[in-house]
Amino acid sequence: MANSEFDTIAAISTPVGEGGISIIRISGEEAVAVAKKLYHGSKDLAKVATNTINYGHIIDPDSGAEVDEVMVSIMRAPHTYTREDVVEINCHGGLLATNRILQLTLSHGARLAEPGEFTKRAFLNGRLDLSQSEAVMDLIRAKTDKSMKVALNQLDGDLSRLIKALRKDILDVLAQVEVNIDYPEYDAVEEMTTKMLKEKAQEVQQRIQALLKTAKQGKVLRDGLATAIIGRPNVGKSSLLNTLLHEDKAIVTNVAGTTRDVIEEYVNVEGVPLKLIDTAGIRHTEDTVEKIGVERSRQAIDTADLVLLLIDSSNALTDEDRELIKLTAGKPRIVILNKTDLPNRIDLNELRQLTAGDRVIKTSIVEHEGMEELGRTISHMFFDEGIESSQNTVMVTNARHIGLLHQANDALNDVLSGIAAGMPVDLVQIDMTRCWELLGEITGDSYQDELLDQLFSQFCLGK
Amino acid sequence: MANSEFDTIAAISTPVGEGGISIIRISGEEAVAVAKKLYHGSKDLAKVATNTINYGHIIDPDSGAEVDEVMVSIMRAPHTYTREDVVEINCHGGLLATNRILQLTLSHGARLAEPGEFTKRAFLNGRLDLSQSEAVMDLIRAKTDKSMKVALNQLDGDLSRLIKALRKDILDVLAQVEVNIDYPEYDAVEEMTTKMLKEKAQEVQQRIQALLKTAKQGKVLRDGLATAIIGRPNVGKSSLLNTLLHEDKAIVTNVAGTTRDVIEEYVNVEGVPLKLIDTAGIRHTEDTVEKIGVERSRQAIDTADLVLLLIDSSNALTDEDRELIKLTAGKPRIVILNKTDLPNRIDLNELRQLTAGDRVIKTSIVEHEGMEELGRTISHMFFDEGIESSQNTVMVTNARHIGLLHQANDALNDVLSGIAAGMPVDLVQIDMTRCWELLGEITGDSYQDELLDQLFSQFCLGK
Repeated sequence: MANSEFDTIAAISTPVGEGGISIIRISGEEAVAVAKKLYHGSKDLAKVATNTINYGHIIDPDSGAEVDEVMVSIMRAPHTYTREDVVEINCHGGLLATNRILQLTLSHGARLAEPGEFTKRAFLNGRLDLSQSEAVMDLIRAKTDKSMKVALNQLDGDLSRLIKALRKDILDVLAQVEVNIDYPEYDAVEEMTTKMLKEKAQEVQQRIQALLKTAKQGKVLRDGLATAIIGRPNVGKSSLLNTLLHEDKAIVTNVAGTTRDVIEEYVNVEGVPLKLIDTAGIRHTEDTVEKIGVERSRQAIDTADLVLLLIDSSNALTDEDRELIKLTAGKPRIVILNKTDLPNRIDLNELRQLTAGDRVIKTSIVEHEGMEELGRTISHMFFDEGIESSQNTVMVTNARHIGLLHQANDALNDVLSGIAAGMPVDLVQIDMTRCWELLGEITGDSYQDELLDQLFSQFCLGK
Repeated sequence: MANSEFDTIAAISTPVGEGGISIIRISGEEAVAVAKKLYHGSKDLAKVATNTINYGHIIDPDSGAEVDEVMVSIMRAPHTYTREDVVEINCHGGLLATNRILQLTLSHGARLAEPGEFTKRAFLNGRLDLSQSEAVMDLIRAKTDKSMKVALNQLDGDLSRLIKALRKDILDVLAQVEVNIDYPEYDAVEEMTTKMLKEKAQEVQQRIQALLKTAKQGKVLRDGLATAIIGRPNVGKSSLLNTLLHEDKAIVTNVAGTTRDVIEEYVNVEGVPLKLIDTAGIRHTEDTVEKIGVERSRQAIDTADLVLLLIDSSNALTDEDRELIKLTAGKPRIVILNKTDLPNRIDLNELRQLTAGDRVIKTSIVEHEGMEELGRTISHMFFDEGIESSQNTVMVTNARHIGLLHQANDALNDVLSGIAAGMPVDLVQIDMTRCWELLGEITGDSYQDELLDQLFSQFCLGK
């Protein structure tokens, strides 16, 4: 039987691990009934008021065995996260008890929620639009204050309001076009209509392009700036890595499975989240002082949005340095001239020639010199006016939104070139309508089921 | 200023990581006042009924910036986890928003809770005794259903009731001794009193020894059985490891920091939690087919409660096999004769001679043969009658409790040898009183502040 959007669903909504409290969340028509079958306490869950917390125990109805001491929150539709009845069972935490309670909900009337399914229901039931739903996960994954603020604005509907205003303007003009086409008896109607369409298309296009200008920064804030630390052995790569990680700036360490190589480490540099590439490789190569594999560097450079290229100022440039300078030439790059605490033995002219146009920063990482300048340089490289200037603008951060805005922009180009070519209004109108529909996909006013499935499947479990 | 037990405290009570919901918990007289300063919504938190859930937003009172959309649970004393006013702020999760809300509670009247401080207050305020408090963390860290059941029984007070019954019996006899000493005019009072003391001491000692008999198994259930997989290269160590880990049996992987070497992996074998030693080493040595370092094996063997020694049945015994057999000789050991899918080329007589008395199990790990027998063998090695036989007995699992029971047992030995040596009743009485006090330390009826500090500091944050 296929999953239905009317099933009662359940999942663990807290992160997995050891902690004081874990939550099993149930949503749907049967949510209270499911909880009631498992709950043992002084209250009748079917009769308690909404938004109340009820103390008791979870008992396996089949074996009679106690599973945990719990607090059960009852939240009745419609003022809930999903707009359905929601029950949250807060238990003592720990993997085992939490899993057992989830299993019991599943064997007593609920089915396991898909990733993001609670939020999907909030969308389907009209509590959040699509861009707000997407902001929920952006908020959870936010890596700096600034990225959190952008996600929060989006959750609050700032982007939605902007898109909806655009769509309303387009719809107004389309309605007017409709009226003009239906009453062609007036003079010069065709000309007037074309002029109106052109003006509106230009105006909407300006607003879309202004939004797209925020996209590059928005994406950096949302996904982090993939940063490769490159340099030959002993130039200070692992010192730089450790300085970045340990100056109270480390944000998050994702460990997928138990393999050291897939660790992703983020650091917050002046509000810009850097996603450090191949940190295991850096540690490894410096630990054993073996030659850094050029192949490994090449991979790191390929995936990088930013390269931090370390050069040892206390030694002459080596062939390996020159090769790494060549390898990283096509990338946004900052050259870090390290070891300024030691006597300078590098030919600065040659270096400047090889790295022409790049920012060169002098550091002594071991003595913490030059780190602030490095941070400022990174921040200004990606946020022209500094990151704070973007404080109150609405930003597009999501690749899906960016793609749709580009398509909407293309549709407007088609409108304008159609008008320029003297195409009939009812054909131009089609492109304008397409623009309106594309913008609707951002907010989810128009969508297809496959989009929802794909989009919510990227959520974490229990959300 | 030193931390006081009257401060209002706050901490993140959910595991750290990405998840749908995170909880910031506040406890103390000012809990509601602190939350009220940060909460923006339609309710007045100071006036809402107890055990209610209130929708709203967290706003930074200083900057006016919104931090997250939240549900705030208000639970008023005394029917709360700590018996104080408790507020739980449920936010969207994610490290950043969760940390920001915690920071705001700290800058507006709360201080950061120490690990275990919520539970410590539950103890100090009389809601839990000490052995129940300890069971809270055992429950969270439980590794199999059976260990969870033991922790849950302890949380429910099963062990406490048993200890309290023992203490009451001791106190009754001490009171009777007191009476008899105060009224020595009756005939043969001294003799009667001595007889009574001796009988009671013997009876209590029997009950304590019965409890101590469960200790070995209890400790295995609580802490896991430290298990070393030993064998020369290519004998199947990593196959065994992967079979154990991937047969849906893996329970938990603790990653401290980002260093692969400190990963602890547990597997559930027939209800017995095995804590696998040096899994990184096993992977490493088999990956690179390098000679297993004897030093590394020796360390693993030293810390093991159980050795699984793999021998290749498709090859003759090597000197390395013989050395590993010798190295592991003093340990509880199961010899696994692997690769039975290949022709047998081992001298079984020599093997049996070298491993005299040990269980030998034939397996073909790659074909999943012999794994069930291995599981049963491990289970029966540590649970004579199988693990289920212990289903309803109260078990001692905690090293602190075990130590105290041993000391109480020693005190009773002193009572009995004192009586045998004809020592006066009032001296014997001192040892009996000591036994009573030692048992009281298990439940926390008698305790010292240092004990509390040391004990609760092992808790996870937010509990």
